[in-house]
Amino acid sequence: MRTTVGIIGAGPAGLLLARTLHLAGVDCVVLENRDRAYIEARQRAGLLEAGTVEALRAVGAAARLDAEGLEHRGIQLRFDGVTHRLDFPALTGRTVTVYAQTEIVKDLVALQLAEGPPLLFGARAEAVEGATGGRPLIHYRHEGRARTLECDWAVGCDGFHGVARDAVPPALRTAYARDYPFSWLGVLADVAPSNDELVYARGEHGFALLSMRSPTVSRLYLQVPVGTDPADWPDERIWDELDARLAAGGEPGRRLARGPVTATSVTPMRSFVSEPLRHGRLLLAGDAAHIVPPTGAKGLNLAVSDVRLLGRAFEALHRTGSTDLLDAYPRTALTRVWQATRFSYDMTTMLHTPPDQTAFDRRIELARLHRIAASPAAATELAAHYTGLPLP
Amino acid sequence: MRTTVGIIGAGPAGLLLARTLHLAGVDCVVLENRDRAYIEARQRAGLLEAGTVEALRAVGAAARLDAEGLEHRGIQLRFDGVTHRLDFPALTGRTVTVYAQTEIVKDLVALQLAEGPPLLFGARAEAVEGATGGRPLIHYRHEGRARTLECDWAVGCDGFHGVARDAVPPALRTAYARDYPFSWLGVLADVAPSNDELVYARGEHGFALLSMRSPTVSRLYLQVPVGTDPADWPDERIWDELDARLAAGGEPGRRLARGPVTATSVTPMRSFVSEPLRHGRLLLAGDAAHIVPPTGAKGLNLAVSDVRLLGRAFEALHRTGSTDLLDAYPRTALTRVWQATRFSYDMTTMLHTPPDQTAFDRRIELARLHRIAASPAAATELAAHYTGLPLP
Repeated sequence: MRTTVGIIGAGPAGLLLARTLHLAGVDCVVLENRDRAYIEARQRAGLLEAGTVEALRAVGAAARLDAEGLEHRGIQLRFDGVTHRLDFPALTGRTVTVYAQTEIVKDLVALQLAEGPPLLFGARAEAVEGATGGRPLIHYRHEGRARTLECDWAVGCDGFHGVARDAVPPALRTAYARDYPFSWLGVLADVAPSNDELVYARGEHGFALLSMRSPTVSRLYLQVPVGTDPADWPDERIWDELDARLAAGGEPGRRLARGPVTATSVTPMRSFVSEPLRHGRLLLAGDAAHIVPPTGAKGLNLAVSDVRLLGRAFEALHRTGSTDLLDAYPRTALTRVWQATRFSYDMTTMLHTPPDQTAFDRRIELARLHRIAASPAAATELAAHYTGLPLP
Repeated sequence: MRTTVGIIGAGPAGLLLARTLHLAGVDCVVLENRDRAYIEARQRAGLLEAGTVEALRAVGAAARLDAEGLEHRGIQLRFDGVTHRLDFPALTGRTVTVYAQTEIVKDLVALQLAEGPPLLFGARAEAVEGATGGRPLIHYRHEGRARTLECDWAVGCDGFHGVARDAVPPALRTAYARDYPFSWLGVLADVAPSNDELVYARGEHGFALLSMRSPTVSRLYLQVPVGTDPADWPDERIWDELDARLAAGGEPGRRLARGPVTATSVTPMRSFVSEPLRHGRLLLAGDAAHIVPPTGAKGLNLAVSDVRLLGRAFEALHRTGSTDLLDAYPRTALTRVWQATRFSYDMTTMLHTPPDQTAFDRRIELARLHRIAASPAAATELAAHYTGLPLP
């Protein structure tokens, strides 16, 4: 098989890029290792920057998002016995939208299956070859047979565990990483969220996040030790711990509305950036090149901004024959990636209580939170990153 | 001897408090361990927040400061091959002033010796007793004899190594500390500063700061390993290293003007806060209670803001008999202390390259600096702290 742009991975990044290229008249093919049911069910992020919403609208994939997404005009920070609200429109003129990644994937898959371009499920990419020649080859297995996709450009949207990054020779590759000494226990529950906005709480015994997927589904997170087994967290323990961590600074006596827990999982917290984002005619986007801890909700949004830049670049190439934007992509994207990486690191450090935190470090992080509550400039900085830096 | 307020230590904090109390008609006595020549010669800070300048003007101690101080309207940050200037008046409406701590001490000592209140040199405080009774006693040695200063209130302005803090019982005291894995080599040189404004440089091989004491005296700093012997830094090595660290991002080919080095010293970098700031009728101010690394130039300014709060509090007590402001002092002062501690920590972390820094941490700190250059809100935050948060 031959195409102009071969895309590995049908997560939001790969699917959005494919949709963008299709509308621009650029041939592409998407290879996805898993099946449709799997990618439409896996729980991931759910908070969209204004720019992410715009990007989905721009490709005609926002009908359901516009109908069902919940626009949020702020978040609450709870720490040291107080709650401080950040008013996003007042601080930045922007808002964010709660809409689950699974729903974005469903919307984009439905469009792609209806209108194209080709999307192959169960197509397991095994290697990218010839990235520095004129025509990269993506070797994959499909329906039990070894196959090759020959393309002008290969784009790795295949996530942290994908194969695309391996096509950059180790000698040319630098990995920047940080593992945090705690994990998140993520909880889905069939109960209306107890608060209209997200509440980020720095409890004395760890971080808690009150979030939601929809008006009837709560999404909740608790800081837990690395290596925690979700089986050690029966429903009652989860609710009790959430109540305890959210109590100080909340409405006195207020308890969360409880409901059936439908899923729990433990997520390690990691920052990771692999450079470069381009090797010859191979480009990397999203989790294939960088991972952030979920505290600042940047992962999905960063993947989307990567492919917005790539979409523009391929459109320009198609229209004018110029590779200028493709050449600029690694630098342009990484500037944004490092800002989001820094923001996610700061949000994570500020809101969690690592097991080995010194009393000094604890006071520093509390001072940081108090400053955000006291200073419009500090609050504006947080809100600017949270709602998303504009694309250059 | 008896007085209303017994002050231990004739640094800028003790002297400014004494001057303030004197003008308010509150009796006080200052006990200073060293002699006049010593305290007028010891090299310390030299960068004054607008509020510090105002405080010195308010007590009539700014005649020479106003004539000789150098008003600075910005600083330069040099990193990753670029130089970014922060324009303080544009960002905050405030400026800072270069005027050496030694000169402030000279000005305040001259006033005090001329007009009072009593200032005893060579009076070595040994202990504060009875802080929780009605009348604290400051035991000291003077002219070879044990003496006692009986007072209504005792104020410890006796620095990090002073005795006042020890009068807070260990069980009631909490120390928060962080030692940084590098030191500063401080250099005084008889040569006109090579730049009108301070240049903070994050060099690949460590931090460098280009500063000044006057139009003819340069003050320069280099990050060096802990335990560095100044004897290992002959003049030529100092100038070569400064040139090397300041080169990237500076004017191409530009070298510092060199001149005779008149003093070098190595300063460890430490953050330290001791709580509480009050124990009965003993109050702590300045370095007696908190130390910051010099990167953000907060040490002297924080000492001054402590005693501005104390000055107000004693004036109110004298005028109205109310201890409300004295009661509020520990909380009011500590809010500011922790903000300055956090700012100094961030400036230090952002600008230095610790020996064990990971590649990830390096990129995070560079991203932080790039953000300050790109975002008015981030620049405003830095400038607000640097020029000094307003007193409540």
